Amino acid sequence: MLATVYHGVRDVRLETVADPTIQSPGDAIVRVVAAAICGSDLWFYRGITQWQPGERTGHEFVGIVEEIGSGVRGVRPGDYVIAPFVSSDGTCEYCHANLQTSCVHMTNWGDDNNGGQAQAVRVPYADGTLVKMAPGLPDDRKKLASALTLTDVMGTGHHGVVTAATSAGGTLVVIGDGAVGLCAVLSAAKVVGAQTVIAVGHNEHRLELARSFGATQTFNSHDPNVAAEILELTKGGSPSVLEAVGNQESMEMGIELARPGGTMSFVGVPHNVKAFPLRPLFLKNVSLRGALAPARAYIELLMAHVVDGSIDPSRVFDMQLPLAQVAQGYAAMDERRAIKVLLDAGIH
Amino acid sequence: MLATVYHGVRDVRLETVADPTIQSPGDAIVRVVAAAICGSDLWFYRGITQWQPGERTGHEFVGIVEEIGSGVRGVRPGDYVIAPFVSSDGTCEYCHANLQTSCVHMTNWGDDNNGGQAQAVRVPYADGTLVKMAPGLPDDRKKLASALTLTDVMGTGHHGVVTAATSAGGTLVVIGDGAVGLCAVLSAAKVVGAQTVIAVGHNEHRLELARSFGATQTFNSHDPNVAAEILELTKGGSPSVLEAVGNQESMEMGIELARPGGTMSFVGVPHNVKAFPLRPLFLKNVSLRGALAPARAYIELLMAHVVDGSIDPSRVFDMQLPLAQVAQGYAAMDERRAIKVLLDAGIH
Repeated sequence: MLATVYHGVRDVRLETVADPTIQSPGDAIVRVVAAAICGSDLWFYRGITQWQPGERTGHEFVGIVEEIGSGVRGVRPGDYVIAPFVSSDGTCEYCHANLQTSCVHMTNWGDDNNGGQAQAVRVPYADGTLVKMAPGLPDDRKKLASALTLTDVMGTGHHGVVTAATSAGGTLVVIGDGAVGLCAVLSAAKVVGAQTVIAVGHNEHRLELARSFGATQTFNSHDPNVAAEILELTKGGSPSVLEAVGNQESMEMGIELARPGGTMSFVGVPHNVKAFPLRPLFLKNVSLRGALAPARAYIELLMAHVVDGSIDPSRVFDMQLPLAQVAQGYAAMDERRAIKVLLDAGIH
Repeated sequence: MLATVYHGVRDVRLETVADPTIQSPGDAIVRVVAAAICGSDLWFYRGITQWQPGERTGHEFVGIVEEIGSGVRGVRPGDYVIAPFVSSDGTCEYCHANLQTSCVHMTNWGDDNNGGQAQAVRVPYADGTLVKMAPGLPDDRKKLASALTLTDVMGTGHHGVVTAATSAGGTLVVIGDGAVGLCAVLSAAKVVGAQTVIAVGHNEHRLELARSFGATQTFNSHDPNVAAEILELTKGGSPSVLEAVGNQESMEMGIELARPGGTMSFVGVPHNVKAFPLRPLFLKNVSLRGALAPARAYIELLMAHVVDGSIDPSRVFDMQLPLAQVAQGYAAMDERRAIKVLLDAGIH
């Protein structure tokens, strides 16, 4: 089969590799229908995190079950499935607590020479990991793309909204207009039902998408008065703030915009946070919550919203390419020509 | 009257100053019965925070109302009262939310040339700030000393226990055996009713006090295996951790000891936290909560426990001196010869 392999900084290639095989009774082999490139993939692509040449890439994919191990009960060959960005056993304390990212058997797709930006993937603990798509969903290309966002980006945005203690009828400030920030706006406005959703970003095109996702006010972070304006709008800060950038400035802005006694969630792996602003958080009794999203926990809920049309997170994909052009997809995201790229594996 | 005045690093003096007077209708003048020296007082004493010579010291005191402004309704001359470590109006959004440290009219005792380590204090917003002592409490010297801890240290320990989401029957790890950490142990064991209270400290004498306050296990932080042993004892971490030291190592240990999905509270003004460990907090979905305690919010509850004898936080005072020896009290705490010093103002 073909799979994307890391070769070096800004060098990923689609190559022929051995087909995956069942190794444990709980495994399934999934034929990939569509995969995505994640913002976090840019870290190894840019050399910020160190990867070894030969490692497989990709942790966001949907597909069709091709083969199952003898112990698998929840899915069968032919089922369309959504795979969250880590695997989990579905039976441990943390899975029962809907914190599958801390599952005692959690594995990343990159482990065991597995990767989602490929034609097929071996899925460990298939019963705990995979979620069958609702009937009809695979036949609608737009909804299938939305299903792909549930593997990571939409679940991550929603996790940030939930952990920021966003309430129906309440107020949330979302800092960051990347794919996660946009999905958070969508979750807050359409899933949780916040009344006021304030989005802060640096790209007018993305802020326009945020408005169409339900943001009630948007602010361009290049404006030096953004914080003062939002503090005035919220009469002293928002009870819920979601930080979806992950650097020093965005963390500082997030805590500044949080109301005393409020909550700030953060959902990106923190980087370039040299001096986390503990003191204002201390003085205002702001809770810091997050972070690594248990995407598995939210798939059923969010899929129901995709099916009934109340959310269309597929719109974060502003570029679609065949899997063969995976390298072009990475380059487009690296050069900020695309918010997020969908890779079509060509079998549906 | 006599009041303690800062003159320079390791130089505080009891001096004659002007008597305080009513300045607003909501003011009260309180004659101090007993005051305390706070661990945070050592920061200006040691020159870590910059104070100006002439500033008054002390923010923990109990006393007798001597005079009230025309607008005061809740206390009368002759009432014994407890004053939390900041004043608050009792009427704003944050006071109603029991977050009096964020009161829109909050003032520190150091403001307006006021200080608690003195013979008298002007209390702004007396109705929102002062709490009358329960009948009989002032007649019992030990309970009066316990009442003094409710101004700050016991309320701060309790706030940390509450914000760490400690549950009745649950588990809490307390890192730090200073007065706040010890009070947190007492709150967890006797007020909240946690079943397992694990205390980590560096002083065997203080850890013994922690055990008598209800700690079920104590660990000396000089033992390099402490974290591993507590992780084994808690089978992978505690759902609730309270960090009561405020430096880099204690923050790191706190997050290491927190169970995935758990909560770490912190209650000391952070200092020497050069690189807050965001990444493990991110990966484990640990919430960081705190911090500056709204002591006012807890006085009634904790006073009821003092009155019925279920808690005796007065035991954190291991040195009692007349107010005239305030300088010796600071030196004793600076040199770690005392956990916490009570200053007797000599009028009861």
